[in-house]
Amino acid sequence: MLTGQPSAVDLRISNVTALIHTPEGAVDFLEHASIDVVGSTIAAIHPKAAAETLPVAMKTIDGRGKVAMPGLINCHTHSPMVLFRGAAEDVASEQWFDDYIWRMEVNLTSEDVELGAQLAIAEMIQAGVTTFVDHYFSMESVAKAVLETGIRANLGSCFFSSEGESGIGTSIDFARTYHGAAEGRITTSIAPHGVYDVTEEHLSVAAEAAERYGVGIHIHAAESRRQTYKSRYTRGVSPVEVLRRTGVLDQQTVIAHGKGIVPEDLPALAAARDHVGVACAAKNYMKKSPETTPVRMLRAWGVPVGMATDGAASNSTLDVWESMTAMGLVQKSQEVDPTWMKARQVLEHATLQSAQTAGLGESIGSLAPGRQADLILVDLTAPRVQPIHDLAAALVYSARSSDVVTTIVAGRVLMEDRQLMTLDLEAVLGELGPQMARLTNREHRKKIQDFVAE
Amino acid sequence: MLTGQPSAVDLRISNVTALIHTPEGAVDFLEHASIDVVGSTIAAIHPKAAAETLPVAMKTIDGRGKVAMPGLINCHTHSPMVLFRGAAEDVASEQWFDDYIWRMEVNLTSEDVELGAQLAIAEMIQAGVTTFVDHYFSMESVAKAVLETGIRANLGSCFFSSEGESGIGTSIDFARTYHGAAEGRITTSIAPHGVYDVTEEHLSVAAEAAERYGVGIHIHAAESRRQTYKSRYTRGVSPVEVLRRTGVLDQQTVIAHGKGIVPEDLPALAAARDHVGVACAAKNYMKKSPETTPVRMLRAWGVPVGMATDGAASNSTLDVWESMTAMGLVQKSQEVDPTWMKARQVLEHATLQSAQTAGLGESIGSLAPGRQADLILVDLTAPRVQPIHDLAAALVYSARSSDVVTTIVAGRVLMEDRQLMTLDLEAVLGELGPQMARLTNREHRKKIQDFVAE
Repeated sequence: MLTGQPSAVDLRISNVTALIHTPEGAVDFLEHASIDVVGSTIAAIHPKAAAETLPVAMKTIDGRGKVAMPGLINCHTHSPMVLFRGAAEDVASEQWFDDYIWRMEVNLTSEDVELGAQLAIAEMIQAGVTTFVDHYFSMESVAKAVLETGIRANLGSCFFSSEGESGIGTSIDFARTYHGAAEGRITTSIAPHGVYDVTEEHLSVAAEAAERYGVGIHIHAAESRRQTYKSRYTRGVSPVEVLRRTGVLDQQTVIAHGKGIVPEDLPALAAARDHVGVACAAKNYMKKSPETTPVRMLRAWGVPVGMATDGAASNSTLDVWESMTAMGLVQKSQEVDPTWMKARQVLEHATLQSAQTAGLGESIGSLAPGRQADLILVDLTAPRVQPIHDLAAALVYSARSSDVVTTIVAGRVLMEDRQLMTLDLEAVLGELGPQMARLTNREHRKKIQDFVAE
Repeated sequence: MLTGQPSAVDLRISNVTALIHTPEGAVDFLEHASIDVVGSTIAAIHPKAAAETLPVAMKTIDGRGKVAMPGLINCHTHSPMVLFRGAAEDVASEQWFDDYIWRMEVNLTSEDVELGAQLAIAEMIQAGVTTFVDHYFSMESVAKAVLETGIRANLGSCFFSSEGESGIGTSIDFARTYHGAAEGRITTSIAPHGVYDVTEEHLSVAAEAAERYGVGIHIHAAESRRQTYKSRYTRGVSPVEVLRRTGVLDQQTVIAHGKGIVPEDLPALAAARDHVGVACAAKNYMKKSPETTPVRMLRAWGVPVGMATDGAASNSTLDVWESMTAMGLVQKSQEVDPTWMKARQVLEHATLQSAQTAGLGESIGSLAPGRQADLILVDLTAPRVQPIHDLAAALVYSARSSDVVTTIVAGRVLMEDRQLMTLDLEAVLGELGPQMARLTNREHRKKIQDFVAE
């Protein structure tokens, strides 16, 4: 069975239904399992039969009536943007950037970013998210919040080429400095904003630096078909081809959105699939158009697609569970095929494929001995979920993040029985309240950038 | 202000943000309001200024930090189908009906239907649903569950013309007998299954009976464009035109789905808009194709569109809140217009327009003196919802049914602090467990009907 050689068990989840993976990466369920955690690592997963011979555990959480699954992974977000949740609703993209977000972001101090990150992390821990892949600025503030709250993150400091050499310099310095921080819970990426607002020269420099320092790259690319067509018109090639020829695809890379990935891009992506993934924020996209990440095409070529929310200023939440439900629904809808994207496949994207996309495919994303103990317990006793004829469908289409009762990262319990253990949410909200008018002030007419893409 | 002349206040929600409507039916919010309930009715809504002069209330619920809104209305469902939740996932429509649902429905006894209705009602009360419009069989069993649990419902006994005169006879008898039952909480409809499996003669009989007994009609119609085109091909007119010429549109009618409503149908629907509405189950539709109810077109002609879930065997939940979120997202997506279907409009569909669709437009759907006290309290303190820059957007896109803490129907508290007051959920689930294998047995190869539509 799935077993290692634990010496002293720090934490046991007993008698739980465990979401596990077959050697091929397919999702399966093991009932009446016990999961043993030693330090930050899953030491063993015992089947029911072994129950009487298990070593003593320091702490046991009763898993009856619950499903244990790998913690959810948010493969692309801008976590501090929770500060602007709902502040730019029902508007077109141009207006969203130029009239709202890029004006309001002028107001942000590094203290605001830290506060935003704390609120975002509180939301994510409550939603069963154990890792997030973040792309923003003042990332030292986000790193501080990650360090203090115990969550796991891949962090990247966003830059535009319009900033000259300082933006990319800051991004590379941040990635070098913070990679491996917080006892390894923090990994980093160099974070060019997009293929359309960062030069090819800067992309090449970013790729070389990623290679040199062993960090990743996290970039918005091929965000829409229009962006792809515009790229072909202005430079003769697609955004993905730009990533390839600048060496970005040779590095561990998160492509945010990829809604404009076209069939010609697939050979390059398939060649890089061991270290390149696409982050899909399916709910988010619906606010604009039916365009979504071409998951069926990417899957046919073996390119990982992970779950994402994007920022809460567009997605309204950082709820990866909602992204999971939305991915399944949107895929069926857009492919006009009720039999496509079966519920178990959705769970594959939410687990192993998200871990691969986040560059952590060897260490998280699956409940297996030797992997980090990033896991959540989901209570499925709500009448909304009962009865359960199909556990995968129950998870994807009936359950939701509010059914997550316990969140564990690197063996540490960050939420138990819905109570946050490492964050004082009331204090965060108390601090935020008086800042709200200042944060959304747009009278200064300044912007951090002009909207050029799409 | 919004005030009546209460003599003795039975229940007060104090210091709450109340979702109210302008005289034109638009959504607005009144902060620091007190809502007084006398008997089953809203007696008054007091603004903050009046707080010190209010009459004594027998019971007060503290509304601080919460939004009070009209209870949600599920305008089209088959509630007992919760029994088959997840039992027919990831399959095409033909298979869903012929291989799964219509085989499994053979197994249902009236006791099963009652148990299913109890579970469905538990789910709906927890989700803040105060009224559901149901279309199924063994409806006496559903009526019993409605009576006992305190929820409000419009119930219709489904019939096919393949049953001969017995089906329609049962449907009319049920509607006559139960209309006004449970102290008025039960209203009824005659419930032809669809335009394609009920004859025009039966539709005319149903319309005449509805007129005679003062009840409604609830029917699947124009469920897809393909169905509409097929109807034109086989009988030369659209399904909506069949409803018009058989007199159905002269009655209080719920049209389920209406995804196949075409522009030519609009004059007939607009002429009937005071008593005809369309029920939209936006999440559900996504499992099949991008087709959805043409809300923009219907709104332009003033035809009410209400929220629905359809049955849980297709929708996975009876969560109208989720339908609300999905309607907003799907509308923006399919209209390729981020500025269409603003959050407040979504709330209009979820409140007054749903009440109109359900045939209860004068008595529920709005917090106003004289209306039935069907209301819910929503806690918006979760980090997923904070901070709130736009309350309507927070409700539609960040909050969800698990944030509903209190559900009140006709002045009676059915859920308080998430605790169900009128249902023993554990007993219901305990009774259901041993039945599951029998309920989903398909070995008998019998079916309640053959799939003909779409």
